[in-house]
Amino acid sequence: MSTPRPQPKLSQRAAWCHDSAISFLMQQGVENPRVLSLAAGLVDQSSLPVAEVQQAVTELMRDPERGRHVLQYGTSSGAERLRGRLVEHVARLEGTTPDRLGIDIGQVVLTTGSQQLLSLLAEVLIDPGDIVFVAAPTYFVFLSVLHGVGARVISIPADDDGMRMDLLEAELARVEAAGELSRVKLIYLVSWFENPSGISLSAERRQQAVEIAKRWSKRQRIFILEDAAYRELRYDGPELPSVWSFDAEREHVILAQTFSKSFSPGLRVGYGLLPRDLVAPVCDRKGNDDFGSAHFNQHLLATVFDLGLYEPHAEKVRATYRTKRDAMLQAADRYFSHLPGVHWVHPHGGLYVWMTLPDRIDTSFRGPLFDEAVHRQQVMYVPGDLCYAGPPESRPNHQMRLSFGVQDVSGIGEGMQRLARAVERVSDEA
Amino acid sequence: MSTPRPQPKLSQRAAWCHDSAISFLMQQGVENPRVLSLAAGLVDQSSLPVAEVQQAVTELMRDPERGRHVLQYGTSSGAERLRGRLVEHVARLEGTTPDRLGIDIGQVVLTTGSQQLLSLLAEVLIDPGDIVFVAAPTYFVFLSVLHGVGARVISIPADDDGMRMDLLEAELARVEAAGELSRVKLIYLVSWFENPSGISLSAERRQQAVEIAKRWSKRQRIFILEDAAYRELRYDGPELPSVWSFDAEREHVILAQTFSKSFSPGLRVGYGLLPRDLVAPVCDRKGNDDFGSAHFNQHLLATVFDLGLYEPHAEKVRATYRTKRDAMLQAADRYFSHLPGVHWVHPHGGLYVWMTLPDRIDTSFRGPLFDEAVHRQQVMYVPGDLCYAGPPESRPNHQMRLSFGVQDVSGIGEGMQRLARAVERVSDEA
Repeated sequence: MSTPRPQPKLSQRAAWCHDSAISFLMQQGVENPRVLSLAAGLVDQSSLPVAEVQQAVTELMRDPERGRHVLQYGTSSGAERLRGRLVEHVARLEGTTPDRLGIDIGQVVLTTGSQQLLSLLAEVLIDPGDIVFVAAPTYFVFLSVLHGVGARVISIPADDDGMRMDLLEAELARVEAAGELSRVKLIYLVSWFENPSGISLSAERRQQAVEIAKRWSKRQRIFILEDAAYRELRYDGPELPSVWSFDAEREHVILAQTFSKSFSPGLRVGYGLLPRDLVAPVCDRKGNDDFGSAHFNQHLLATVFDLGLYEPHAEKVRATYRTKRDAMLQAADRYFSHLPGVHWVHPHGGLYVWMTLPDRIDTSFRGPLFDEAVHRQQVMYVPGDLCYAGPPESRPNHQMRLSFGVQDVSGIGEGMQRLARAVERVSDEA
Repeated sequence: MSTPRPQPKLSQRAAWCHDSAISFLMQQGVENPRVLSLAAGLVDQSSLPVAEVQQAVTELMRDPERGRHVLQYGTSSGAERLRGRLVEHVARLEGTTPDRLGIDIGQVVLTTGSQQLLSLLAEVLIDPGDIVFVAAPTYFVFLSVLHGVGARVISIPADDDGMRMDLLEAELARVEAAGELSRVKLIYLVSWFENPSGISLSAERRQQAVEIAKRWSKRQRIFILEDAAYRELRYDGPELPSVWSFDAEREHVILAQTFSKSFSPGLRVGYGLLPRDLVAPVCDRKGNDDFGSAHFNQHLLATVFDLGLYEPHAEKVRATYRTKRDAMLQAADRYFSHLPGVHWVHPHGGLYVWMTLPDRIDTSFRGPLFDEAVHRQQVMYVPGDLCYAGPPESRPNHQMRLSFGVQDVSGIGEGMQRLARAVERVSDEA
């Protein structure tokens, strides 16, 4: 008689972190290789900077002493050389000079993509049961990070100007009345071209958000995490000031940015501008986690700036996506506009078109559309319900996130045609 | 009247993670730039593979399609191309063939240095109050990781053959008698050339460790984390089988290795061979943390293997460190052997010489030696007490970790001479 095989006993956090939805989505992609993906969050393949990276590495390695330096360990906060470049870069984006940016280089922290910064902030700020406000809908991987640390996530409805600040304030009042204001840690804002909705927070609401964070910091400081991952992917529409720019004291807003969208995600370099007293907690945690991200990659990107390769490349990337966004919007017009009750957002930037179907069409994994799309029409989307916090049964489930990131113009057209066919089939049966 | 400035309220984990000791050590280095560091855990600068990296990048980017592929997002578990190379590489180290290694490529996970794997495992296995066994002394950054997740760390004394397995078993019996066996999650073993002691676990004890983990997995599975960071830095002495090799079912032992010591730490590529049912929890967590480490760097290292550049470089690195280890041991003989009560370990590999002083000489930050060494003699070491778990007052505090990693031969000689002078000065006063 054999004894039963002893099982691992995982941590509570591992259980919270387990996200079957994203795994299921990726598995569907792997199991159905002929499926055209409008779901994948990958970036445009054709515009990735092969020549620029080759040139930067050659330059970096030309002086063997510098070459050896960049192959050595760096520090938890990252290479000073790139952090200096980033102070200049953010100053340019903010329309000011490095001197007037109001932060010093010590407040710039380099991470493995901006995703790692999001995760580190959740770790250092949130205890189980702490409260975080997010827009509805919002970035689904951050929802997963928040669940992974046991946060209570409160969704605030959004309209065409982004998160409704009046409703955020009403929720704060409700939380205070319940005696829980001391549990509020963070307001999460994807301020430019929100993933998935494509909507940007209006300038007025950006200012209001900072005022609200300050006003309600009655006990502990309430932070705003401004996820500006898509900031540099603006194709048209107004140029907006950052939420961060309204925080004159640089105490409430964390500005998270990345090179993953504007240059290359495979280098995994993101960065944050942090309020002074978050730097040590984030770097202590990062020191334990990995001693700092790849020193080599940080210097590679600094060299890309030194050689003047960054801005021309970012401009090329924007032009590519502008064309692809237009292709997706044209395909939406062509294939979806005759379908009753279907509408979508026209994004001024980012990578996504957010499409709403009639209420009765369930776009979730459990509904007939996903099956029809993936297995018969061979096209995949991200079900909208994944982008909402709260129990599955409470989430809107008749929306889709459609990405124009990875497919080329013809793939976008073909994908949209297939998807419209799937919607028509399911509509007929509904 | 101004209201008081609201303070951040950090998470419990952030408080646990705060490690003033390591920060203090790094700060001392920064504030005293003329100090010769025998403390820094950096690798030998002169042997870093500048030409090899340049060659690999050129090869990698030669085909633009492949170049674009490696600059795109990868996956949480890492590039299959490198994972395949690693199955071959570990098979070579284990003296077997990939077919007979007893794992498949899906059990190989790539991380940001092996440090990230250590941290991920702590996250997915350990709840506050769970028990982890470590050797005394052991790797101090992992102690910090364990404190960061609220683990109870139990130290097991070590002798010249590494952790005492009879004492480990006695502690397990004690824990069981206290009704806490269900809280035991992990046994941490730096099996080759332990950081800081330089001691390797004997072959017999490697086998015993696996037997003990199996025998005591009465409730949940008890894992062994085999930290093999220094495995490929062997200069002489016996070739030992891994702890992992005794775990025929590949269920109990996690084997953690890295390219940081044998190739380049600036690329931040480490890896683990995981029991099958830890793969999903670790990758789910890693997906939330950073979506996977740098895809570019993973392919860069795969190309280093493809071009046959890895083994010759690792051999060169070993030759360099062998010389430097000999230089440190000779300097120890020359400058310390006349000092009563001073002795040290002769390591067969790794980066450290572990030196014991008479009990009365306090090597900690609080004692007179550290001050004398850093501020007068201008040499720095890692105080031995940092390498023990438990409250500061209970830890041995008359030892030093001396690294021959970063200094060249002349720096090692000079550093050891300065350190001996500091010990003599302090001894005279004691």
